[in-house]
Amino acid sequence: MSSQAFVAEMLGTMLLLLLGCGVVANVALAGTKGSGGGFLMVNFGWGLGVFAGVFAAAASGAHLNFAVTLGLWVNPDTPVFAPGIEKTFGNALLYLLAQMIGSILGAVLTWLAYKQHFDAEPDPANKLGVFSTGPAIRSAPWNLVTEIIGTFVLVFVIIAFGNTPSGLGPLAVALLVVGIGASLGGPTGYAINPNRDLGPRIAHAFLPIRGKGSSDWGYAWVPVVGPLIGGALGGLLAPLVRVVIAA
Amino acid sequence: MSSQAFVAEMLGTMLLLLLGCGVVANVALAGTKGSGGGFLMVNFGWGLGVFAGVFAAAASGAHLNFAVTLGLWVNPDTPVFAPGIEKTFGNALLYLLAQMIGSILGAVLTWLAYKQHFDAEPDPANKLGVFSTGPAIRSAPWNLVTEIIGTFVLVFVIIAFGNTPSGLGPLAVALLVVGIGASLGGPTGYAINPNRDLGPRIAHAFLPIRGKGSSDWGYAWVPVVGPLIGGALGGLLAPLVRVVIAA
Amino acid sequence: MSSQAFVAEMLGTMLLLLLGCGVVANVALAGTKGSGGGFLMVNFGWGLGVFAGVFAAAASGAHLNFAVTLGLWVNPDTPVFAPGIEKTFGNALLYLLAQMIGSILGAVLTWLAYKQHFDAEPDPANKLGVFSTGPAIRSAPWNLVTEIIGTFVLVFVIIAFGNTPSGLGPLAVALLVVGIGASLGGPTGYAINPNRDLGPRIAHAFLPIRGKGSSDWGYAWVPVVGPLIGGALGGLLAPLVRVVIAA
Amino acid sequence: MSSQAFVAEMLGTMLLLLLGCGVVANVALAGTKGSGGGFLMVNFGWGLGVFAGVFAAAASGAHLNFAVTLGLWVNPDTPVFAPGIEKTFGNALLYLLAQMIGSILGAVLTWLAYKQHFDAEPDPANKLGVFSTGPAIRSAPWNLVTEIIGTFVLVFVIIAFGNTPSGLGPLAVALLVVGIGASLGGPTGYAINPNRDLGPRIAHAFLPIRGKGSSDWGYAWVPVVGPLIGGALGGLLAPLVRVVIAA
Repeated sequence: MSSQAFVAEMLGTMLLLLLGCGVVANVALAGTKGSGGGFLMVNFGWGLGVFAGVFAAAASGAHLNFAVTLGLWVNPDTPVFAPGIEKTFGNALLYLLAQMIGSILGAVLTWLAYKQHFDAEPDPANKLGVFSTGPAIRSAPWNLVTEIIGTFVLVFVIIAFGNTPSGLGPLAVALLVVGIGASLGGPTGYAINPNRDLGPRIAHAFLPIRGKGSSDWGYAWVPVVGPLIGGALGGLLAPLVRVVIAA
Repeated sequence: MSSQAFVAEMLGTMLLLLLGCGVVANVALAGTKGSGGGFLMVNFGWGLGVFAGVFAAAASGAHLNFAVTLGLWVNPDTPVFAPGIEKTFGNALLYLLAQMIGSILGAVLTWLAYKQHFDAEPDPANKLGVFSTGPAIRSAPWNLVTEIIGTFVLVFVIIAFGNTPSGLGPLAVALLVVGIGASLGGPTGYAINPNRDLGPRIAHAFLPIRGKGSSDWGYAWVPVVGPLIGGALGGLLAPLVRVVIAA
Repeated sequence: MSSQAFVAEMLGTMLLLLLGCGVVANVALAGTKGSGGGFLMVNFGWGLGVFAGVFAAAASGAHLNFAVTLGLWVNPDTPVFAPGIEKTFGNALLYLLAQMIGSILGAVLTWLAYKQHFDAEPDPANKLGVFSTGPAIRSAPWNLVTEIIGTFVLVFVIIAFGNTPSGLGPLAVALLVVGIGASLGGPTGYAINPNRDLGPRIAHAFLPIRGKGSSDWGYAWVPVVGPLIGGALGGLLAPLVRVVIAA
Repeated sequence: MSSQAFVAEMLGTMLLLLLGCGVVANVALAGTKGSGGGFLMVNFGWGLGVFAGVFAAAASGAHLNFAVTLGLWVNPDTPVFAPGIEKTFGNALLYLLAQMIGSILGAVLTWLAYKQHFDAEPDPANKLGVFSTGPAIRSAPWNLVTEIIGTFVLVFVIIAFGNTPSGLGPLAVALLVVGIGASLGGPTGYAINPNRDLGPRIAHAFLPIRGKGSSDWGYAWVPVVGPLIGGALGGLLAPLVRVVIAA
């Protein structure tokens, strides 16, 4: 993986997290203009965060999500991670590293953009909610099931994009993320991406956020393990809908 | 119809139902993060369920809806169900079977993704509402009229897509479903698809949903018969707007 | 204009009105599932009504709106109304006739789809509001100004679409209508189309709607004259942004 | 820069401001039909204002925003402002002039379209809010940080569009603006464009708006300087994600 692709993957993931965490800040923190903007607005914010990130990360194939990297890795129909980037263990680690750094950077930028609203917000849970996901009803097994299903849909359909040429470019994955959020985000807040959750949680832990409370490390493994399982399932099952030319 | 096309049609319909029933669960069940998300969010959830399903079901032409299969069947300008799939009675039955299995699977996955919220929800009507449609004001003839009109629009316009090449791919039908939902979903909740309603109703009947109440079988024929009539009308009337080259 | 183009223009306009009036019915009438869905949902309903109508009316160039027909008529850069349809007085009248019949048909279908909710709705103003526009603050001159500005934007930008090739097809005009509705629909409910307002008003006058009240004919000229002026201005001023090849 | 390009840039910016300020008027002023439409509707209004403006301004490359002009100017990979328009100081000034005139014209048209609602609105702050942005929590340094981050995302991603060919045309930038608004608009109302804020503020100062109150000139420099810094950063850093062919 070239340094150019590494930087692109990092900055694309940064943009995803900046716009994604940003929309949650706008809806959840005290005194913002988007206060009470609703869940559909949150879905659009994350979807359009993917949109922006994919354009920026063209050089790396724009995984932005280690569940996607893993899904492509185990998918037998995907020969490479991206044009010019072989499916090797080393490259997978580089994707992970770029995604983790980008996720942390994006969360830091969100904190800076909403600094005064973090300071004004009285509830530590709302502050953490800008960074990381948390379950509506806590139960590790069921929360895991929800994250597995959501990430399975993401990775399975991303791989299926190849079956239907369209002129949508990055809009296809953006809209898919809007849909998964609206439909499957209700129980856990749809991490569907291990670094999307873990990177900002690390940022939450080290940033000097006024009155920030716990980073809820007890839950942190769920939005990592669930998306990894879901992404792997998506990559493994995608050949079920492979379109064979001249079938 | 190849086994590959059968599986694609089944899994595409599964994704449609998973995201479609999922968004209703998110808006309607107790304690979710999308609670009170509004009807437009429901419309986007179903529309983007179609979006995901169409990408997955490329191998079968992505009917996902037996009203579409029927509309194409009776449409004189459609030579085949999909490239390589002849318009035979047997193939129509295979579409129906794949769609029914996929619809049931999608509903089961929705139940798993929202398991704890089904348990927490006190009102059995809200639980059934995640699976199947029900009328705002019950009257079989008028509910039938609404479903006929909505499905007519769906199938008529899908066939008319062929008149206007665009780069939208699966987005065109997704947005059409958003629009039909927003505009014609008010009286009956827009089944506009017989298997979309019947499959989940069967799932509701057999799943061990806590405190689930009646599956309302008395209404079940309306969202089957209405869409079949509307789909057939759409297919039969579509030639009215056929574009004749060199006219 | 061929009979095929006439029918296409009529049915396309019917679909526009069916989805457009339908979304207002869903938001405004008693007891629907979209009750309280908000203004953005109304904007999407009308925009996607245009989307559906444009696909159906490919054979006529999909004006769907006599302000568009007039704008193209007076625009010096538009050689014909549509491929094979000359800019003659007779053809303009045929567009108008097709649009008026289609508008009335669409309104009738909306009434049928929402029949029970029209019956349940106590306020006659809400019933009329499904069919025709009315001003938030009544003042013919200012209401006219608003309709002129909104329709100017519509026709001016539609003609400008030709400057920027894209793969959006009918989505471009659909989104433009969503935007004009959200941004300029506040004062008058954005007729921006003479037949969109007059056709349903005629339907309101003759349909046996229970407890329907006045059709408000005193206001009827404003959403006809305003859009005609705005459309003509759009067509006349569009050459200002014409892109000259090899400039 | 030809007079044709100048007029196109001016009218495109006018359309952006008309639809952008219009949606704020619809949501914020007394007695409109979109009252309480929500922040997502505001985001769509501005995004679709960009959409309309970009089609109109094809001849000038549709900057519509001096932060974009500046970003392109300092970006080493952009050879010209637009096809046929060299990157000279004189041309930059012409872009600025066209953008400022267009911004003022758009704000004036918004005032005319919503004239009666400006008269009916009792709160001067809501009137100014239609024209210009203001901070949710006033603090020049932090407001500046937010505007810098938002504009950086805008310009950085616009330049990155070139890396990923798609059929979206003007929709890509429209959706990007929807996303930036939803995600980063909470603290300052996202000027992300110096003329978008300054032009309407000038219009607010000279228009005879009933009971208009202060134009808040003390804040006016923030949404000018912030976007200029952010745009310059976007242009300077964009080469980080440049895609080198044959890398």
